[in-house]
Amino acid sequence: MKVVGIGQCSLDHIFIVDGIPQPDTKKEVAEWAIEGGGPVATALVSLARLGADCSFIGITGDDEAGEKITHSLIREGVDVSGIIKRRGCESQMAFILVEEKSGKRTIFWKRPAGEPLKNKELPHAFLEGAEMLLLDGLMSEVSLYAARTASEKGIPVMLDAGRMRKGMTEIAEASDYIVCSEEFAIEYAGGSEVFDPLKAILKMRPFGAKAVTITLGERGSVTMCGDEIFHTPAFKVKAADTTGAGDVFHGGYIYGLLKGWDIKDAVRFASAFAALKCESIGGRKGIPALDKIEAFLKKGF
Amino acid sequence: MKVVGIGQCSLDHIFIVDGIPQPDTKKEVAEWAIEGGGPVATALVSLARLGADCSFIGITGDDEAGEKITHSLIREGVDVSGIIKRRGCESQMAFILVEEKSGKRTIFWKRPAGEPLKNKELPHAFLEGAEMLLLDGLMSEVSLYAARTASEKGIPVMLDAGRMRKGMTEIAEASDYIVCSEEFAIEYAGGSEVFDPLKAILKMRPFGAKAVTITLGERGSVTMCGDEIFHTPAFKVKAADTTGAGDVFHGGYIYGLLKGWDIKDAVRFASAFAALKCESIGGRKGIPALDKIEAFLKKGF
Repeated sequence: MKVVGIGQCSLDHIFIVDGIPQPDTKKEVAEWAIEGGGPVATALVSLARLGADCSFIGITGDDEAGEKITHSLIREGVDVSGIIKRRGCESQMAFILVEEKSGKRTIFWKRPAGEPLKNKELPHAFLEGAEMLLLDGLMSEVSLYAARTASEKGIPVMLDAGRMRKGMTEIAEASDYIVCSEEFAIEYAGGSEVFDPLKAILKMRPFGAKAVTITLGERGSVTMCGDEIFHTPAFKVKAADTTGAGDVFHGGYIYGLLKGWDIKDAVRFASAFAALKCESIGGRKGIPALDKIEAFLKKGF
Repeated sequence: MKVVGIGQCSLDHIFIVDGIPQPDTKKEVAEWAIEGGGPVATALVSLARLGADCSFIGITGDDEAGEKITHSLIREGVDVSGIIKRRGCESQMAFILVEEKSGKRTIFWKRPAGEPLKNKELPHAFLEGAEMLLLDGLMSEVSLYAARTASEKGIPVMLDAGRMRKGMTEIAEASDYIVCSEEFAIEYAGGSEVFDPLKAILKMRPFGAKAVTITLGERGSVTMCGDEIFHTPAFKVKAADTTGAGDVFHGGYIYGLLKGWDIKDAVRFASAFAALKCESIGGRKGIPALDKIEAFLKKGF
């Protein structure tokens, strides 16, 4: 199983807080984890833990953060030969506040300072052997080019749509599987009324994807596949940190698709995979192994 | 004018937000400044800008953050020969959210991973020529030792008391000037009733300091000097970022004291110095030069 991902990789500073303090105060934080992150990078790490052969393509700066980001992928066996290091630039970084009680995270992030990846910077034959291409669409030009190249070669494309950005419509139209956040769905489908995921998903039909899924956090997800729309509830776990849950969901979804499972089973597997991840602090630390997910699903949760 | 400071130095990540976002969302931050910080380090930078000869003593890790911290002091002409670099350790870091509208900042910070400075790690004759020793009391053992050594040599000591920590009472007793935050005053004087700065300051009389000042942000400060207690209002400015305002206040206060000014004038100068700093984003960027402070004070604000 080989998956290629093009998109964000980040150095995440994650810290646990017992609520947001009053403005104009200082808060000493005891637990402060530093970890590799970024939607596509973490999705590939989750796939690598399930035994997939993964290649990450993206940019870092030539700073310490960039080294840590790259090393965090190498350690997981992800091929990083497609990372371009931008000279004199800072890498993507995120500060993530995790509320101790709920495990809910708020992410503050900044883009890498360097220019987005250019088409000509893609490794030669970057899709060789790939069974799936994962994109987050942040670097719109290279994402669209890669999606169209994959389509020509008959390689399916999954788009992780976090926000409605420039070029997202075109990338979505070139994608086979669209997994989007609630924020994207609201932005795309218009947010003037009360948000209705079923209405929003129908508005995404013109993308022409094989399947569209809107992830809704603890409310699970809604998927449209052909004429069918189904809801998949979230598994109930004691969440310590929801950081990376979406990324792991994408990884699990791809795993299921490439195993040839029915789409409902793939989404259910993805949902369990993401839920189990939330039991640990950090976006990657708690990504479970296959046997743990299988045992969890067997228990009939 | 020579000032020695022992205490915290930090790498600050400062970013401007238009309010705290909803939990479980992501916020892309456009403006994200990385700057040297830390109470004692920034106070010395403010003194260096006024022409004082400053030496900083503290610890960093041997990481990129540590290099940036040290360089941020060298650039300002602060002597850094008293910085001990702890091997394999991370430096102190802070993540500072600044609310765009009010300029109020909320600081999340973590201590450096390395052990606190030991007495024997102080540079030889570290107080030579010093006219003031500034402490923040975080490294309690070395702070107390340095305060007592200074007292023996007749060198005045200023304590920046941010929080009530282990050993703070002893350090305060060995200090000549105590400038504390409202949080420290509440913690020290007991916070069961509505906080009254006048009552709180009286409870600090047993420290035996020449003067005690409680800083109250936009409400100014209250100072007790001998039998007199006086309030100094804050100068009204359009605050872009209050990060470092307290540190610059300490710097200005020391400047006034070493110039031999009356304590009221020293506090008023400190207050103007801190107010002007708040007009720019970042803890140090906006620290004004002497002529700007003098012009501001002359305008009769």
